[in-house]
Amino acid sequence: MAAATLPSAQEWRSIGPEPQQQLALAPCAATPPNRARSATKMLPRFDPGVMETYLDDMREMKIRVHELFRQHPDLLPNVEEGLSKEEHRSLVRRSLKVILQAGYSPLDLLARDPRKYFYLGECLSMVDLSLMVKSGVQYSLWGGSVLNLGSEAHRRRYFDDIAQFRLPGCFAMTELKHGSNVAALQTEAVLDTLTDEWVVHTPDEGAIKWWIGNAAEDGRAATVFARLKVPDPNGGPKLVDHGVHAFVVPLRDESGNTLPGVEIRDCGYKVGLNGIDNGAIRFTHVRVPRINLLDRFASVDKSGRYSSPLTSQARRFAATLGELTGGRVGLTGGSVGVLKGAVTIAVRYAALRQQFGPPDSPEVAVLDYQSTQLRLMPLVATAYALHFAKGLLIEKYVDMKRTREPKLVEEVHALSAGLKAYTTSYTQAALSTCREACGGHGYAAVNRLGALRSDHDIFQTFEGDNTVLLQQVSAMLLKEYRQQFSGAPLTATYHYLRASLLGALPNNPLVTHDTEPRHLRDPAFLSKALEYRTARMLFTLSLRLRKHGPRLGAFHAWNKCLNHVLDLANSYVESVVYKTFLRAVAGCVDPECRRSLKAMSDLFALRLIEGDMMFRNDEYIAPAKSKAISRLVVQLCSELRGVALNLVDAFAIPDHILRAPIGLGGNGGVGGPQPDAYREYLVAAGFDV
Amino acid sequence: MAAATLPSAQEWRSIGPEPQQQLALAPCAATPPNRARSATKMLPRFDPGVMETYLDDMREMKIRVHELFRQHPDLLPNVEEGLSKEEHRSLVRRSLKVILQAGYSPLDLLARDPRKYFYLGECLSMVDLSLMVKSGVQYSLWGGSVLNLGSEAHRRRYFDDIAQFRLPGCFAMTELKHGSNVAALQTEAVLDTLTDEWVVHTPDEGAIKWWIGNAAEDGRAATVFARLKVPDPNGGPKLVDHGVHAFVVPLRDESGNTLPGVEIRDCGYKVGLNGIDNGAIRFTHVRVPRINLLDRFASVDKSGRYSSPLTSQARRFAATLGELTGGRVGLTGGSVGVLKGAVTIAVRYAALRQQFGPPDSPEVAVLDYQSTQLRLMPLVATAYALHFAKGLLIEKYVDMKRTREPKLVEEVHALSAGLKAYTTSYTQAALSTCREACGGHGYAAVNRLGALRSDHDIFQTFEGDNTVLLQQVSAMLLKEYRQQFSGAPLTATYHYLRASLLGALPNNPLVTHDTEPRHLRDPAFLSKALEYRTARMLFTLSLRLRKHGPRLGAFHAWNKCLNHVLDLANSYVESVVYKTFLRAVAGCVDPECRRSLKAMSDLFALRLIEGDMMFRNDEYIAPAKSKAISRLVVQLCSELRGVALNLVDAFAIPDHILRAPIGLGGNGGVGGPQPDAYREYLVAAGFDV
Repeated sequence: MAAATLPSAQEWRSIGPEPQQQLALAPCAATPPNRARSATKMLPRFDPGVMETYLDDMREMKIRVHELFRQHPDLLPNVEEGLSKEEHRSLVRRSLKVILQAGYSPLDLLARDPRKYFYLGECLSMVDLSLMVKSGVQYSLWGGSVLNLGSEAHRRRYFDDIAQFRLPGCFAMTELKHGSNVAALQTEAVLDTLTDEWVVHTPDEGAIKWWIGNAAEDGRAATVFARLKVPDPNGGPKLVDHGVHAFVVPLRDESGNTLPGVEIRDCGYKVGLNGIDNGAIRFTHVRVPRINLLDRFASVDKSGRYSSPLTSQARRFAATLGELTGGRVGLTGGSVGVLKGAVTIAVRYAALRQQFGPPDSPEVAVLDYQSTQLRLMPLVATAYALHFAKGLLIEKYVDMKRTREPKLVEEVHALSAGLKAYTTSYTQAALSTCREACGGHGYAAVNRLGALRSDHDIFQTFEGDNTVLLQQVSAMLLKEYRQQFSGAPLTATYHYLRASLLGALPNNPLVTHDTEPRHLRDPAFLSKALEYRTARMLFTLSLRLRKHGPRLGAFHAWNKCLNHVLDLANSYVESVVYKTFLRAVAGCVDPECRRSLKAMSDLFALRLIEGDMMFRNDEYIAPAKSKAISRLVVQLCSELRGVALNLVDAFAIPDHILRAPIGLGGNGGVGGPQPDAYREYLVAAGFDV
Repeated sequence: MAAATLPSAQEWRSIGPEPQQQLALAPCAATPPNRARSATKMLPRFDPGVMETYLDDMREMKIRVHELFRQHPDLLPNVEEGLSKEEHRSLVRRSLKVILQAGYSPLDLLARDPRKYFYLGECLSMVDLSLMVKSGVQYSLWGGSVLNLGSEAHRRRYFDDIAQFRLPGCFAMTELKHGSNVAALQTEAVLDTLTDEWVVHTPDEGAIKWWIGNAAEDGRAATVFARLKVPDPNGGPKLVDHGVHAFVVPLRDESGNTLPGVEIRDCGYKVGLNGIDNGAIRFTHVRVPRINLLDRFASVDKSGRYSSPLTSQARRFAATLGELTGGRVGLTGGSVGVLKGAVTIAVRYAALRQQFGPPDSPEVAVLDYQSTQLRLMPLVATAYALHFAKGLLIEKYVDMKRTREPKLVEEVHALSAGLKAYTTSYTQAALSTCREACGGHGYAAVNRLGALRSDHDIFQTFEGDNTVLLQQVSAMLLKEYRQQFSGAPLTATYHYLRASLLGALPNNPLVTHDTEPRHLRDPAFLSKALEYRTARMLFTLSLRLRKHGPRLGAFHAWNKCLNHVLDLANSYVESVVYKTFLRAVAGCVDPECRRSLKAMSDLFALRLIEGDMMFRNDEYIAPAKSKAISRLVVQLCSELRGVALNLVDAFAIPDHILRAPIGLGGNGGVGGPQPDAYREYLVAAGFDV
């Protein structure tokens, strides 16, 4: 009973089977202790094609999309060849058209079959992240804002032109001085009742729209986020500010000249993603018709009367931002795609590269070193974990779009925020790890790890800075927690949670000290430990906020607990990811594949427990158990090394998309390390071989 | 007595004052508990100029070097403007000449005043890392190999031409398939006794020299590392292979045409450092005179008779590589320079950038958020820590060059390996943290964090892969440890070390549980804890190697303990860095500066203890103490936030060298955040302001 009443139990319940079922399904690896201990020395090889099929039920589409780029190899950017931003942008523009001509309309997919829309994004991620993001700007941000924030009239007017890229457009939210704090944007749209127009204006330099994708070269219109201001209905002299709303504002005419009052500058070279034309926009009293307000959540009549089905400014703001969840789902998918690509390159090269060895023996593969295994195998395991978690997020997003069930809307908001933050931070660090693991040859631009890192970097910041998104996750957890206990005095809450915390503790001291691999790899132990951690953090955070709130006020109390807030959110996401992974292990019918999945899920959870001092400080695990976990982590990495090539082959990224000479697989990318990877690399450097 | 007999005590003793002295000097912050607790809320501001003087006793030289680039702003690369590798290389070439023309001869400095040589390198690091590294290739690697591995005749013949860049040259060690394992290089130099020449040859594609700096465009000669082979003196049919030696091999004539038998390819774009012309070289039976063997450690006469003052091939190999320590010292300095630059940008921008705030109040600076403080303040503290550690390394290097004392040679070898690995890994991760902390504007190329990360990345790999270097550190620790106990049976050793381990434990359980800030910030506690950790790891590693060695053989036993080996090396380096930091705190006579230095040294050590599960698993600190340390870390970050701008201003990087618009200081770089940093940024984007 205790575990079921934890605040996040609902989330967990909705993800996977009940704990009892998991236990029933888990024994794919639960052989008796002795056999297990010897069996763990070696995981059975499996057929990567079988695993691929389990991971990916839309692979036909991937094959077709990637085939486009086999036919148009000129569209694959050689960022490693000193491509200028103008050349790269032109390449991306042509790629967008090739995709449309092949019959894929991303905006159609977004509106009608979002699962395919997100899948297409992941397929493009290893082709060129600039292409993936440019597509996201045009269809998900510009198109999505018109679709989701406008009314049927807006949809009719713009849909086809946006879908066919005849009307390239922007999502003009961020300003020079205003990023995460969207509610503080300063651009204004004032209604002129005489002409029935909005006057869009940049009041000062800090309010210049900044980083606006599609703006520097292509954009002909933009969804501009601005403070909606109307005359005082009571006739007062001051305008009434209804807060931030979205307006469609034309930027350029058909010949590409900026319209009067619109000043656009190129934001210049960025760390990466230079295939995207980010621009800065200053508006000087730009007039657009009143109907250009995207009015799904609020409308203004000719006289300036403001009305909305939602009762407060805060709710309208939340509803507006809530419609933008899709962008974060897309980024999560793209980030997982990059992670798969990077670990594919690093694992294949580490299996190929030899260095040092016993006296009078051949050198050994770098992947046979314990330190390389500890570096790379958790990355592979996490790539699988996040692949399944991304799948869950997309499922829930699709359900939410279908049902519009308010509870689900909230859940998807938190899950998309948390998974976007967690996945992009993880992938970013992994890209550095992969480059380092590939040594000198990893530093050759042609091997892609540098450009992937530079391109992917901003995934951590755009569509919600990760630090801000994680706070939203914790805020939601706290809200759920408070809703459950609203009205109850502090002591009752305390006793209640204390009981559930105790319930999450191992049943007896023997468990705290149990160092048997069978126990340490038991999903019941691992889930319970991760649940315990999240519940405990939530409980103590709530106490701390209550303690500091009265004296410091909500803002400063929150800031005083900010590290705690971020840790809670990460802990929550990790619990969800692990639960999802368990479901995926259980659902795999192929016994060989399931053994590897189970080992990776164990590794994923054990690494988290190994790294968190809280388990020791609470004496949740005894010192000997802590050390046994560290040993087991090393052992699992060594076991997974045996199937490492199988595991990355199952991601099935074809050679012509992966491109890195040191990471190519045999048979076009699905058959282990190409014996001649060095040869490809020699050819790339211009040697005749 | 116990602590003094720990294996690394000698190292520690040679760095800082005795513990007693430290305690006497430390009380700069040791006010009585109550006052301390309130005093810790605020650190006194200090004069950054005073701190700068304490950090830097050669600042006049820095000012003059940086002044060169104020006069030649065209030499500062706009990598953010899509500079091609050819343009960047040409810029670097011109910069090298400007430096020479200004009267700085790096090769002279390297030979006569290495302290200034390394200082010059650090000064160049924030100008352009390509320039710093190109200078290192020409003078330290090419010049240094001739100076240190050759005889007086070589020195006379080449010195001036190398020093004046009239003879650009290379250090041709790495091969396509052979990097870290230098002993396994395959290029060969066979003596032809008929013509008295070496025949230098690349036997297969894997032996093509790869990543050779200066080779693609400039290099006219190279120090080539190749297996020295001579006819069998007993007249046998097979050649005798004496292992890897260094030979001077001409590559191009004066017009820049490659010489017969020399094939060179451009290694192409790299992740960064594109101002350096790395090339790949294949030799086909290239003949050079016998005297081109750099023969300080071994010579060959006309008849092919090999002789050496060193008795074994292993010793000659070690002596050869030992002469290359200087490169690692230089990289450590350059890496510290980059770390200072990156934290300067990030801290200034975080102090300027505002986002969110309490209701109806102005937004607050991002640096006032607890999470930003925990992100950035440890970076500032570590930049100071590594600055002092780098100073120690240079001191010891200079002493070693002067005295040639064998014990010191060994120590500098280990210290340079360990500090190079630790510093470059730390700086690399810090560059990502800084970019992320600067959010969207950190992604603008003009703000430099991306290019710095891409350029610096390979510091972790070249001149010794960090993973390999750390193993050398641990190997040296084990060697020292074994020398102390040679001959003693295992049990004696065990008892002996067990005693010293117990000696390093807190004296009584009260200490294990002591959560008072006064105790937690006591250098005696912090040093002892870090010493304990290193000693314990060394002791247990030695036991594990003894256990596994007989069954697995040395190579596989080492690999079985490899993560342990790497952890030990890092732990050792951290102990050394902390001890050096303590000495620097004690040596600072300005009380305000000393308060900040003390707080940073505390933060540095506490973060290490906070993050290491071993202290808890050994019950070296109790749970409540562990939590108190975490709270204290957060509090120290908050205190240091008050002097954060002072701390980075003291690095005194002038604005025209720092360049990032969002990171500029007032008064040309020494006076806190420029109120108009946004304005600089607007100008950079082309707006009229």
